[in-house]
Amino acid sequence: MVTEPGTRPLRADAQRNHDRIIAAAHDAFAESGLETPVEEIARRAGVGAATVYRRFPNKELLMRAIIDARLAELEPALAAALSAQDPWEGLLAALRAILDIQVRNLAFLQVLAQAGAMPHLKSELAERVMAPLYELFARAQAAGELRADLEPAEVHQLIRMVAVTATEGHGCAAGPGWRRYLALLADALRTPAPSRLPPRASGGA
Amino acid sequence: MVTEPGTRPLRADAQRNHDRIIAAAHDAFAESGLETPVEEIARRAGVGAATVYRRFPNKELLMRAIIDARLAELEPALAAALSAQDPWEGLLAALRAILDIQVRNLAFLQVLAQAGAMPHLKSELAERVMAPLYELFARAQAAGELRADLEPAEVHQLIRMVAVTATEGHGCAAGPGWRRYLALLADALRTPAPSRLPPRASGGA
Repeated sequence: MVTEPGTRPLRADAQRNHDRIIAAAHDAFAESGLETPVEEIARRAGVGAATVYRRFPNKELLMRAIIDARLAELEPALAAALSAQDPWEGLLAALRAILDIQVRNLAFLQVLAQAGAMPHLKSELAERVMAPLYELFARAQAAGELRADLEPAEVHQLIRMVAVTATEGHGCAAGPGWRRYLALLADALRTPAPSRLPPRASGGA
Repeated sequence: MVTEPGTRPLRADAQRNHDRIIAAAHDAFAESGLETPVEEIARRAGVGAATVYRRFPNKELLMRAIIDARLAELEPALAAALSAQDPWEGLLAALRAILDIQVRNLAFLQVLAQAGAMPHLKSELAERVMAPLYELFARAQAAGELRADLEPAEVHQLIRMVAVTATEGHGCAAGPGWRRYLALLADALRTPAPSRLPPRASGGA
């Protein structure tokens, strides 16, 4: 994830520093918000502040790198889901992987959301996470395994419905109970659907 | 709701002022948080600040009165749900009523939650909202209409799963789409359950 067009791969020690800075920044932002001084991130990473500044001249680059690292964790799971024999199992595996990443990074994601969350990152996320998910959604519907009266865009709401069960009142993490509620919701998604859903309200969903 | 043990009912004009103060305080807290000055609440209510102070010597009393007013809206719906012929329909009606109140008062409830939310109000809420809901839950399970592998305490999570669909990213209201997701979740709650849920994780749910 570190290599960008026109750049060379980092040497092993530089890569190690890079990874430590990203991990330290992730934890620092999650605990103390985006205002955490670079010096504090450097201290946590065990490197000098100059090293952080050299690699990440501004916080947005650091943020992109953190998101990139999370996507790099997620992408093998999405690829596996896309090559699953059964589209329904593939869809569930993808939802599980996305929720797992999301729940483990809850505090960081809240910081991002509160900060207004860099809109130009959204199209990248859309391409790398939502595109495979929509594909799996369509395949599961085409296979007659996923109820037909849901639209692919609603997968956002489905994810939120489960993600909220991983938080307590104030957005604190509350353990792995979300897997139970994903299983519950999956029962509602599976065909044959016992009821026909009311239509999506305009402005709703 | 205004009459407390040992107090007399308010005269009609006093009752009108009381109701206007509560409505104004609700909106002011929802928009500007609990720090809203009493003068601003009085201005919105079209009464003098002295009138507000006389009726509500502190903000906690004002808050209690707001919550009381919301409960007074909710209780007829809960009573109707409890006397429904079909326990499943009763349970769904109660969930619908609770979610409707919650969604319409989202901004105020967020202010409450951020303020640490007065723990001693919880037992009152428990008695007046959760007790009927647990009762309906137990009846629907006893009637074999609600899946047996859910525990009554999980109704909190079910409500949160639907309530989150009424918000957008940052907790802004997003319209009446939540009714669709309540219907979806209801399909998962209804017997026969197509799967057996994984157990509740310790610390989870």
